Amino acid sequence: MNEEKTTAEYKEQPQIKPYKKEVDYSYTLGAFPTYELIKARPEQVRKVLVDTSFTDKDNLKKLCEENKIPMEFNNKLISKISDKENCYVAGIFEKYNCELHMDKPHLVLVNPSNMGNLGTIIRTAVGFGIYDLAVILPGADIFNPKTVRSSMGALFKLRFHQYQNFEKYQEQFSSHEIFTFMLNGENTLTLQECPKSNLYSLVFGNEATGLDDSFLKVGTSIFIPQSPDVDSLNLTIAVGIGIYVFANQK
Amino acid sequence: MNEEKTTAEYKEQPQIKPYKKEVDYSYTLGAFPTYELIKARPEQVRKVLVDTSFTDKDNLKKLCEENKIPMEFNNKLISKISDKENCYVAGIFEKYNCELHMDKPHLVLVNPSNMGNLGTIIRTAVGFGIYDLAVILPGADIFNPKTVRSSMGALFKLRFHQYQNFEKYQEQFSSHEIFTFMLNGENTLTLQECPKSNLYSLVFGNEATGLDDSFLKVGTSIFIPQSPDVDSLNLTIAVGIGIYVFANQK
Repeated sequence: MNEEKTTAEYKEQPQIKPYKKEVDYSYTLGAFPTYELIKARPEQVRKVLVDTSFTDKDNLKKLCEENKIPMEFNNKLISKISDKENCYVAGIFEKYNCELHMDKPHLVLVNPSNMGNLGTIIRTAVGFGIYDLAVILPGADIFNPKTVRSSMGALFKLRFHQYQNFEKYQEQFSSHEIFTFMLNGENTLTLQECPKSNLYSLVFGNEATGLDDSFLKVGTSIFIPQSPDVDSLNLTIAVGIGIYVFANQK
Repeated sequence: MNEEKTTAEYKEQPQIKPYKKEVDYSYTLGAFPTYELIKARPEQVRKVLVDTSFTDKDNLKKLCEENKIPMEFNNKLISKISDKENCYVAGIFEKYNCELHMDKPHLVLVNPSNMGNLGTIIRTAVGFGIYDLAVILPGADIFNPKTVRSSMGALFKLRFHQYQNFEKYQEQFSSHEIFTFMLNGENTLTLQECPKSNLYSLVFGNEATGLDDSFLKVGTSIFIPQSPDVDSLNLTIAVGIGIYVFANQK
């Protein structure tokens, strides 16, 4: 099997397979994320697959035609690339690169390991108006259909960029004020006392290990108060609260 | 196969199987939740299973002896009841019932459907000091090992009770002020304007459908502000923010 087809060959003879990280395309599985994909990034969509039992065919067909996207009824192919039942629509899209905005607040995830968490965090960030995400590698595959699905399509509304290490990120965005979320953070995040900043980066560590102590010296370290009855908060919850509080300060 | 063994028969002839909702016992899978189980509810623990390659045997053995809990090395049984690799410890515990406290704030989940979410929500509630959870049925199985695992053992520190419908819950706790979290809630939750209440119930709906409009008339309805670029927030995130803001008000 030759994974290194050119795009032209691919389009002539589509041999679509269950997702692999190495290939240059991925899938949206389900109607909702596929609509979000088409509306946010139509130029990336190669094709939309539809199950013949899908009930909203006419609207989807219209949206595809408006965006000059081929639509194909193919129950067999959908069930091949989807691992869940009840998947009636799938979008095939080309992976893409983004640059982060210099003058917007950022979310920085250091080594996020779980694709479901990564997608939920993306949905949350977009939900609270943060549209720029830096991922410090190694990290979960942002284009994996699991990430896409748990982002509920919010991935397509976000700018993201991957960095080999935190220093490289920091060099590029030296005007951003850094806030690191850590269990041993020196400042407690309360509703009454959130640090004020116009241009900030909120930095969170890996699910299992958090940020190591070297991050205590990078900017302002923050602790979300929590009872001794838990070991820590779930990463997605910590990110949700951090973003909510920072994005809502006045 | 007879699932209706008495406890005595079970203890003499343990035929432990992968988890089923109908049986009167469940499992903690992994060392961390098992420690939490033993420390919080030792009287519920029937037995602790240990893989011979587990590295913290001595501490676990001591803890089991202190609590008069049988400990058994049984790699085969652990791999039989655990669906993940890298599970070195499992606790077998009897399911139990709780009553909620009359004078503490409550979290109320109406028809939560996902076990991972339910566990994460329990971990978050305990993390922010809410120890009383009402589940309105139908709802995800609170004792399923998946719920236990994603709660990181916080389940054992919580009081919970299941109700057939919301009215039955409300009858029992008529002194609690009700706050319903809804996309069409009439009050916006901001850091500056959180409703003040000394004894409250925070009510959240199902992952897919939220609370239906009948809940608009039940107490005070609340909307967590979010951008139009997402359909809604993930349930666990909405609960996390709701609890964090209410629990931190002064």
